[in-house]
Amino acid sequence: MAGKQTITLTITCPDTVGIVAAVSGFLSEHDAFITEAAQYGDPFSRRFFMRCVFIPGALSPPKADLEKRFSLIAQRFQMIWHMHDAEKKARVVILVSKFGHCLNNLLHHYHTGSMPFEVPAVISNHPDMQSQVEWNQIPFHYLPVDKADKTSQERALIALLDDLDPDLVVLARYMQILSPELCARVSGHCINIHHSFLPSFKGAKPYHQAHTRGVKLIGATAHYVTTDLDEGPIIDQAVERVDHTHTPDDLVAMGRDIENVVLSRAVRYHIEHRVLMNGAKTVVFK
Amino acid sequence: MAGKQTITLTITCPDTVGIVAAVSGFLSEHDAFITEAAQYGDPFSRRFFMRCVFIPGALSPPKADLEKRFSLIAQRFQMIWHMHDAEKKARVVILVSKFGHCLNNLLHHYHTGSMPFEVPAVISNHPDMQSQVEWNQIPFHYLPVDKADKTSQERALIALLDDLDPDLVVLARYMQILSPELCARVSGHCINIHHSFLPSFKGAKPYHQAHTRGVKLIGATAHYVTTDLDEGPIIDQAVERVDHTHTPDDLVAMGRDIENVVLSRAVRYHIEHRVLMNGAKTVVFK
Amino acid sequence: MAGKQTITLTITCPDTVGIVAAVSGFLSEHDAFITEAAQYGDPFSRRFFMRCVFIPGALSPPKADLEKRFSLIAQRFQMIWHMHDAEKKARVVILVSKFGHCLNNLLHHYHTGSMPFEVPAVISNHPDMQSQVEWNQIPFHYLPVDKADKTSQERALIALLDDLDPDLVVLARYMQILSPELCARVSGHCINIHHSFLPSFKGAKPYHQAHTRGVKLIGATAHYVTTDLDEGPIIDQAVERVDHTHTPDDLVAMGRDIENVVLSRAVRYHIEHRVLMNGAKTVVFK
Amino acid sequence: MAGKQTITLTITCPDTVGIVAAVSGFLSEHDAFITEAAQYGDPFSRRFFMRCVFIPGALSPPKADLEKRFSLIAQRFQMIWHMHDAEKKARVVILVSKFGHCLNNLLHHYHTGSMPFEVPAVISNHPDMQSQVEWNQIPFHYLPVDKADKTSQERALIALLDDLDPDLVVLARYMQILSPELCARVSGHCINIHHSFLPSFKGAKPYHQAHTRGVKLIGATAHYVTTDLDEGPIIDQAVERVDHTHTPDDLVAMGRDIENVVLSRAVRYHIEHRVLMNGAKTVVFK
Repeated sequence: MAGKQTITLTITCPDTVGIVAAVSGFLSEHDAFITEAAQYGDPFSRRFFMRCVFIPGALSPPKADLEKRFSLIAQRFQMIWHMHDAEKKARVVILVSKFGHCLNNLLHHYHTGSMPFEVPAVISNHPDMQSQVEWNQIPFHYLPVDKADKTSQERALIALLDDLDPDLVVLARYMQILSPELCARVSGHCINIHHSFLPSFKGAKPYHQAHTRGVKLIGATAHYVTTDLDEGPIIDQAVERVDHTHTPDDLVAMGRDIENVVLSRAVRYHIEHRVLMNGAKTVVFK
Repeated sequence: MAGKQTITLTITCPDTVGIVAAVSGFLSEHDAFITEAAQYGDPFSRRFFMRCVFIPGALSPPKADLEKRFSLIAQRFQMIWHMHDAEKKARVVILVSKFGHCLNNLLHHYHTGSMPFEVPAVISNHPDMQSQVEWNQIPFHYLPVDKADKTSQERALIALLDDLDPDLVVLARYMQILSPELCARVSGHCINIHHSFLPSFKGAKPYHQAHTRGVKLIGATAHYVTTDLDEGPIIDQAVERVDHTHTPDDLVAMGRDIENVVLSRAVRYHIEHRVLMNGAKTVVFK
Repeated sequence: MAGKQTITLTITCPDTVGIVAAVSGFLSEHDAFITEAAQYGDPFSRRFFMRCVFIPGALSPPKADLEKRFSLIAQRFQMIWHMHDAEKKARVVILVSKFGHCLNNLLHHYHTGSMPFEVPAVISNHPDMQSQVEWNQIPFHYLPVDKADKTSQERALIALLDDLDPDLVVLARYMQILSPELCARVSGHCINIHHSFLPSFKGAKPYHQAHTRGVKLIGATAHYVTTDLDEGPIIDQAVERVDHTHTPDDLVAMGRDIENVVLSRAVRYHIEHRVLMNGAKTVVFK
Repeated sequence: MAGKQTITLTITCPDTVGIVAAVSGFLSEHDAFITEAAQYGDPFSRRFFMRCVFIPGALSPPKADLEKRFSLIAQRFQMIWHMHDAEKKARVVILVSKFGHCLNNLLHHYHTGSMPFEVPAVISNHPDMQSQVEWNQIPFHYLPVDKADKTSQERALIALLDDLDPDLVVLARYMQILSPELCARVSGHCINIHHSFLPSFKGAKPYHQAHTRGVKLIGATAHYVTTDLDEGPIIDQAVERVDHTHTPDDLVAMGRDIENVVLSRAVRYHIEHRVLMNGAKTVVFK
C-alpha cells in the first residue's frame, strides 16, 4: 500500500442538508476507513465545519486522484477544504526574545519526538537562546532590532520566512509587535502566546496589571495573530489560582507553567489540523 | 409539520467501514437536517459509537416509519440503537437520605426548567425532605429501612419503581447499598454520586479517608450503578483544591458544591442521551 | 466560662516591627488560646493584615475588658481592628431579581445550617421568588422599580436596609445598578456576583460577550460593590472550560454553577471575617 | 550588616498557649523584621507548625548567636526547629531514567535561575540524558542496574549521595524502587513524582490503569519517599480533564505537563522550607 498513508480532511462550508452524507459516502465508496471524525454546524454563522481522519484501503486511489474526485463534492457545497498527509511533519518556525521557557518546552517536544514537527529555524532579536537552539542542531537566526529603523529587521524576517516556508510560525514570547504586512502574510498560521486570560489585560505587562487589579486567577491565551493586537481568534486558554501573597514576580513565575501548557496544546491542535477558523473565533476539534 | 420534532439517534455497533456514510446517507435521503453529530470508534474494543440530533424535513416520514426503515441499516451493522424524541421530558426519580444538597440542586433545575425533566417522585428512607419536595408539588414516598429486614423496604422500592417506570433513577446521596437484584433492574439508567474522586476512597466516609491520607485535591464522581459497589462506569468527575487546614467537616462542606455540579452534569448528559456504554466505561458526547 | 466564646480578631495597620509579637503577647498574657492565625505584610502598600481566632481561657477577662485593654496596643500601631464574637450569626440580607439560582443556593445553606448566618429579609424588584423565600419562613419584600422614577424604589430600599441593619448585603443576581449614595452606605459589606471572569466582560450580558469573543473558559467573580461598576475589590473567582459548541444559553446554564460556588464562598469568607480590604484589592485569609 | 541575610525559621512542636507570642516576641526583641509568617495548629495531632521569614536588623546578633539564644525557647516548647539561611541555594541531586521531561523542566529552572537551587549532579541508570545534562555543565553519573545484582548499583548510589550530601534528592521519573535502607537515608528530603492522582493507581503504568478504569480526570502526585511505595506524605497534586477519545499514549503525553508542574512546585516548596511533616501528611505553607 505504498503512498496510502493516513489522511486528515478538513472542511468549512455553508451549512446545509447532506454534507456528512456526501463526504462519508465518498470515503466509503473509495474504501477509506474513518478513524476519527468530528463536525459542527454553527447556528449563528450558519457555517459547517468537519475534520475527518481516514486510512485509504486496498481499493483506494492515490491521494492525488482522491483529491481530484473529491473536488466535485467540494464544489457542490462551496467547501474550503484540504487533504493533509497526516504523517508529514509540520515545519514550525519559532520566534523568541529573551524569555526562553516556551522555546525550551517546544524544543523538548521536538527533541523527544513527543509532538511530531520539524523546526527548520529559530529566529530571535536577541542572541541569548543561540546555544540552546544549536545544541538541538537547529539553525538559529539572530535578527537584532534597530530601534531607529524597525522595518529593516522586519524585512529580513519576512525574507527569511519566505525562504523557510513554514506551516506554522510560533511567537514563543517574541515580544515584538508585527507589522500589518507581516500579520497578513502569516495569517491563519501564526500563533502567539499572550500571558493573560484574554480579553483581560491586553498589551504590556499583563501580570503586573493582574496584580494591580487583584484578580484571584491568572491565565494565558494562545491565539492566531491578526493585525488587531491580542484580538485574534483564541485557540486555547488556561488559568491558575493566585492569592494576595503573590507578587508580580510570583505571577510571572507561575505564568510560565500556564504559558507552556497552553502554547504547546495550541501548537499540537494546529499541526494536527484540529483548528478551523470561524470568523473571529475558532472551532477546535480536540 | 405536526409530529416532526427533533430526534436524537444513538448507535453502538462493531466498528467497520461505511457506518457514518450509511447513517448520514439515510438521514439525507429522508430530508432530515443534522444539527449535532458526534461519533467515536474505540480502537481497543473495536466498537463504534454515534449520537446524532436531527430535525425531520417537509418530506420526512413520521418517526415510526423512519424507525422501521432505519432498522434495515441497523440490522446490517448489528446496531444497538434508539431514536429518542428529543423534546419528550425524561422521567427522573430521585432517591435521597438525609443530605439534601443534591436533591435541592436537582429540584431547582426542575423548578426553573433549566434542565428539561419531570420528577414523578422522590423516594427516601428518611422523612426529612418531605416538606421541600412537596413544596415543589412532587409526590414524596417515605420508605423507612427496618435494619432487621432490609429486604422488605427494597421490595417496596422495587414495586414503586416498577410502577413509576422512570427513564432515570438518581441516587442523590441515598446512602443505601442496592441489592444485586435492584442493581440489575436499573442497570444503565441509575446514576449514583460518590463523594470521592474514584477509584480513590471507595466505600464509607470518603472525605474522612481523604483527610487521613492528606490529599491536596478532593473530588466527586457520578457513575452508573452496578452490582460492584463504586466500580460502575464513570460519567463525570471534578475536584477542588484543599490544604492541611481543612478538617473533614470542611471537606464535607466543600464537597457538596462539587457533588452538585458533577451530579447535575451527569443527569443532563444522560437525559440528553449523550452517554453510551462501552464495557465498564462510558463514551460521553458532550 | 459564661460569655467566653470564640473570638475572631481582625487587624489592619501600617507594617512595622513587633506587631505579631505585641498581639500574640497580649493574647498569651490574657490566657487566650489561638486556634487559627494568619498575617500578611504587603510590600507594595506597606500595610499589615492579621486575622486571629482565639478561645479565652479561665483567666481571661470578659470580651469588653479585653477590647478595652487591647485598644492601647491598637492605638500604638494605628490599627483598624475588631473583635468579632465568632459564634454570633451574621445577618445577611439578600437582593434578587428574576434569576433565583444564587438565592436558592444561599437559602439551602441557610436552611440546612451549613453556613452560619441569619436572613432577616430577601428583597426583590420582582415577585417571582416570594413563595420560595416564604417557605423558608423568611420575610420577602417586593420593591418594584418604576422606570420613570427609579429613585423612589431606592429610597424605600435604603430605608429598609437601615431598618434591617445587616452585616452583609448580597446582590444575588440583583440586576439593578445601585446609586452612588447606596453604594457608599453599604461600602465594605455588600457583595455582588458578576457573571464573568472580571475584568473581562464588564456590564450587561457577559456570557453573550464571551460567546462573541470565542473564549475557551468562562467565569464568575464575587466582589465588593463600589460606585465604579464591576470594579470593586475581588473576593473570589472561578472558571469552567467551554468550547465552540456552546451557545450563549449553554454558557448561561454552565455559569449558574460557577456563580453559585463563587458567591457562596465569598459570603462564607465575609461572615467568617476572612476578607480584609487592601485599597482596591482584598486580602483573603482562607 | 555583613552576614545578616534573610532567615527562614521553621518550627514543629506540641501545640499549647504562647508559642507565637514567644517566637514573635523573641524576634521583636532581637530587632528582626518578619516579612512572611504562617502557623497552623492541627486539632487532630495536637501539633503546632510555624514558618517565619525575617530580616535581621541593625541591632540583631549574628545568626549563630540568634540560634543559641533561641534554643532556650525551643527547649521550653519541645520544638523541632531550624534557622535556614534563606539565600543559600539548596543542593538538589536529580535521579532520572529514560523519560526526560521532568529533568528538562527542572534544568530549565536551574539554567534560567527562576528557582534558586544548585544541581551538584544528575544520576541515571541510563545514559540517554548525559548530553543534555552536560550541556548545562552539570556532572552526569551513569549507574546502570545489573538485574542479577541490583544491590551493587544501589551501594554505588548511596556512596555517591553520601559524597554529594544534597539538601534534596528528586526522583524525576527515576522508575526504580529504592531499598528500605536508601529510603531511610533520604527520609524527609527525597521527593518522588508519581504519575497518578494518588491514592488511585499506585504502582506500575498508572496511565494505563486510568484508561482501563475510564476516569474523566488524570493527575500526578509529588510526595516524600518512604519505604511504603507511593504512600509517602503528599506535597502537591494536580489533574487535567480527559475523555473517552484519549488513548493511554495520549494520557502519557498530557500527563507530562501535569508532572512537570506538580514536581517543580513541590521542589520549590521544599527548598523554600515551606513543607513540614505532620505524621504521614504534610503542612505546606504556600
